[in-house]
Amino acid sequence: MPDLRKDPIVGRWVIVAKSRARRPHDFETTPKVHSGRLCPFCEGNEALTPAEIIAYRNPGSQPNGEGWRVRVVPNKFPALEIEGDLQKRGDGIYDMMRGVGAHEVIIESPSHILSTADLSEEGLREVLWIYRDRLVDLKRDKRLVYGMIFKNVGEAAGASLEHSHSQLIVTPIVPIAVREEMQGSQEFFRFRGRCVFCDMAHQELATEKRIVLDLPGYVAFCPFASRFAFETWILPKAHHSHFETIDKQGIEDLARTLKQVMLRIEAALDRPAYNYILHTAPFDTHELGHYHWHLEIIPRLTKTAGFEWGTGFYINSVPPEEAAAFLREIDAENLRSLSQAG
Amino acid sequence: MPDLRKDPIVGRWVIVAKSRARRPHDFETTPKVHSGRLCPFCEGNEALTPAEIIAYRNPGSQPNGEGWRVRVVPNKFPALEIEGDLQKRGDGIYDMMRGVGAHEVIIESPSHILSTADLSEEGLREVLWIYRDRLVDLKRDKRLVYGMIFKNVGEAAGASLEHSHSQLIVTPIVPIAVREEMQGSQEFFRFRGRCVFCDMAHQELATEKRIVLDLPGYVAFCPFASRFAFETWILPKAHHSHFETIDKQGIEDLARTLKQVMLRIEAALDRPAYNYILHTAPFDTHELGHYHWHLEIIPRLTKTAGFEWGTGFYINSVPPEEAAAFLREIDAENLRSLSQAG
Repeated sequence: MPDLRKDPIVGRWVIVAKSRARRPHDFETTPKVHSGRLCPFCEGNEALTPAEIIAYRNPGSQPNGEGWRVRVVPNKFPALEIEGDLQKRGDGIYDMMRGVGAHEVIIESPSHILSTADLSEEGLREVLWIYRDRLVDLKRDKRLVYGMIFKNVGEAAGASLEHSHSQLIVTPIVPIAVREEMQGSQEFFRFRGRCVFCDMAHQELATEKRIVLDLPGYVAFCPFASRFAFETWILPKAHHSHFETIDKQGIEDLARTLKQVMLRIEAALDRPAYNYILHTAPFDTHELGHYHWHLEIIPRLTKTAGFEWGTGFYINSVPPEEAAAFLREIDAENLRSLSQAG
Repeated sequence: MPDLRKDPIVGRWVIVAKSRARRPHDFETTPKVHSGRLCPFCEGNEALTPAEIIAYRNPGSQPNGEGWRVRVVPNKFPALEIEGDLQKRGDGIYDMMRGVGAHEVIIESPSHILSTADLSEEGLREVLWIYRDRLVDLKRDKRLVYGMIFKNVGEAAGASLEHSHSQLIVTPIVPIAVREEMQGSQEFFRFRGRCVFCDMAHQELATEKRIVLDLPGYVAFCPFASRFAFETWILPKAHHSHFETIDKQGIEDLARTLKQVMLRIEAALDRPAYNYILHTAPFDTHELGHYHWHLEIIPRLTKTAGFEWGTGFYINSVPPEEAAAFLREIDAENLRSLSQAG
């Protein structure tokens, strides 16, 4: 079982996986995306994955057989494992616990598509529903406090399989970046009595200069202090701290917004590698006045130098005002042809 | 002039550079390391860089001509610019200031070498001296509060030129990761009355299992909560918060330790891409009991997925105990031959 280890200086937790007896030379190259090989995520190849946790299936189909539309399976090489207790312990100045948690893969389509933009709006809705279902299910486990949903597309974004999929890592601790968001937004709330994310959405909608899309229910914009070129956030206009409280209308509106945003990003940047990350409140909190769930989309256009992790200091050479203007103005013809190709 | 913009949620500052009228398509590919072309950092090509700020030169040589051993020039594409005042201002809920600061390049050798391991110990000492000299000089400027020295080697680490060089970015604000280190170590100090870094060094030296090298003046180890495979830190054994207070013996000992560590990392991992980052206390502080300068070395073996930035949550599949054992046991023959080749 992997360890969870805490950095004694800043309190960041790291998953340290048990050795698989690998030699250092195994790390010389980054794994390539397997293209053209037998894809374990395609319909018909269900036997190549661990047994499914849940799937949205057509009537009459059988678990782990064909006939599904979205399918969730355990990660074959999980970063965390679901069995056992945490065994929190110290070792001198260090703190650690067992790597208890969940690591699941959400296979977004039975067809070999490559990106969120290739999903139909209906297909994307089902992906969002299954995100919700998994969070609701896993939050019953009192050992676990945070569910992290993210997606890597393309080798430069860390993907090792090209078939469109998301991942869910559920942890017994709150990740440091989430804790910082929670603390920062709490401080803002204490000082101003409002949600900082609501304030951002209002200011963006009022000034319009960083808006990518303003649709029913959601606003998409390039944030004022974008770390990355074409970084785009999607926020629900109504205040909600927990993604899993989303309702049917919310899912429909989000699917429409996310699809439109991804089509624009892919048209503007010629189908770049990207990540998206769902930021939502920890399991062990009730609805919070200061926190606001949202989705952060990060196209991977340039390599991040190590100093950016080391310092938290980012250099972005595309002002968000320009990125947003460009994404706003992508012409409808382009979008349609890309959409039909997908 | 670039902007410095503050994220209103977590307080992270981002450099947003002025547009250079680039189209999104310019971002489709990451620039490659220029190999085989005319190198602007090689001796004889001084005219290809901006005029030097300082150089350690042989007697009789002229500024911006041949005859130097280490040379510091302004970055040709600076992230921050030195002229003018900060003009701190707000824009609704957002805070910003002008991107005043310095961005310099330290050219580490007149010869076209590729890595710190290729420098002689004497050459490396001069690189470390010039780090010190630049920090001491720039900290006189009261607009500036932090000096960040870092090095990118190899395309995967974000380098765009292969000739061995470091960079110095000096900022009017303290980068968030440094602020967090300062706060975390201050909390530890309040609670235990000791420096957390001193405690780490003591525990590592006592248990030995994560030690890479234990040499006069410095200890090199793979940290307990390593984010990256083969991440290695070098700490001075004596407590000092500011790198620039280093003395002659300290420079000599550090050059020896850093050279030995880099030779081992390069032998173990077949000359990987890497970054190193010097973590030191802000300019506007005196000697601090709770902070301890150190150097963090990060081999770039795997691609970091965006979710790792998004969450601060790292997965490391090489336990630091194994990485350290491997680096400790690199045989002397290997080191010697690599050293002679360099």
